[in-house]
Amino acid sequence: MYTLYEYPPSGNCYKARLLMHQLRLRFERVTVDTQANETRTPEFLLLNPNGKVPTLKLPNGEVLAESNAMLWYLAEDTPFLPDTRLQRAQVLQWMFFEQYSHEPFIATLRNWISYANKRDEFASEIEAFRPKGYAALDVMEQHLESRTYLVGESYSIADIALYAYTHVAHEGEFDLGNYVAICRWLRRIEKQPRHIAIDWRE
Amino acid sequence: MYTLYEYPPSGNCYKARLLMHQLRLRFERVTVDTQANETRTPEFLLLNPNGKVPTLKLPNGEVLAESNAMLWYLAEDTPFLPDTRLQRAQVLQWMFFEQYSHEPFIATLRNWISYANKRDEFASEIEAFRPKGYAALDVMEQHLESRTYLVGESYSIADIALYAYTHVAHEGEFDLGNYVAICRWLRRIEKQPRHIAIDWRE
Repeated sequence: MYTLYEYPPSGNCYKARLLMHQLRLRFERVTVDTQANETRTPEFLLLNPNGKVPTLKLPNGEVLAESNAMLWYLAEDTPFLPDTRLQRAQVLQWMFFEQYSHEPFIATLRNWISYANKRDEFASEIEAFRPKGYAALDVMEQHLESRTYLVGESYSIADIALYAYTHVAHEGEFDLGNYVAICRWLRRIEKQPRHIAIDWRE
Repeated sequence: MYTLYEYPPSGNCYKARLLMHQLRLRFERVTVDTQANETRTPEFLLLNPNGKVPTLKLPNGEVLAESNAMLWYLAEDTPFLPDTRLQRAQVLQWMFFEQYSHEPFIATLRNWISYANKRDEFASEIEAFRPKGYAALDVMEQHLESRTYLVGESYSIADIALYAYTHVAHEGEFDLGNYVAICRWLRRIEKQPRHIAIDWRE
């Protein structure tokens, strides 16, 4: 049995939950409230010294941090990870794009505006991050205009990684109205077998 | 022959250069001056729509972005990537840690202070980013206190990814004086066969 330490509204945590559900893996969920700094307690820091969720305890007791590293671990030798060397690297390219160029802006605004109630405190950062979030969406839109999925011709962990915060970008007040290819791709992801919503409870 | 589009002082670009040299791969270097916005020209955006270096053209003409995705591509089936599932995921864990919790603070301060001459313009950001950079170094120090390399018992692309900006952290005015384990690890990386310095020219 896996144990997923998670803050349920987090898109990063949702990535692991979604893939484990699609892979029919059994997992226990342990809530760690990041808003209440529960990731900074001595007990939690023993589990993950970087003090972040998701943190995944594997059935053998080993612990993995970093949502996209978990996706990779879980997806190896499954249809969720392509089997050519180039496509595997392209999956990682999109996952690093997500963590560097997408999540820091799109997820952060969603958190400040819709969860942490910090719209006023971070007003100038919100203004500065807004165009960077749209720039990431522009890169995705251009890529998806001529493609079904982010990499190759099938659904992969690259799609899971980018779906997580893109489909709730409106909670950070990003308007996806003009992103036709992205919206088509979001609907395609939602039609995958065993898809679950971010607020899914068993 | 590979073609590496790079800004030579960039640690992200150095990662690919270092690994290709250690793997004895032939590559051409093309300088793209990020300070002069040469990553935003229409020609460059055709190559990499996200407008960043390094960008790597493979011998077959395909193009890869994201430094750590390149490292993975180049390292597959070599001793630079461990062959157990857990260790591969741990390599990725450290590479995602690098791009999310380390590079945005340590590399950014180095650039503003030592290359882009923006110390005054970004004075308040520099102050805010400083403790976040040290927090990343603290996580590395704790991990390396009892280990030779970041993952397992051998040098891997996780070490290359973290070495790139850690060994020049002083250019962002981070003081590594108290980071004994990190400094020991840096020296160990520099003793690897075919190691090259960041300012290496053939």
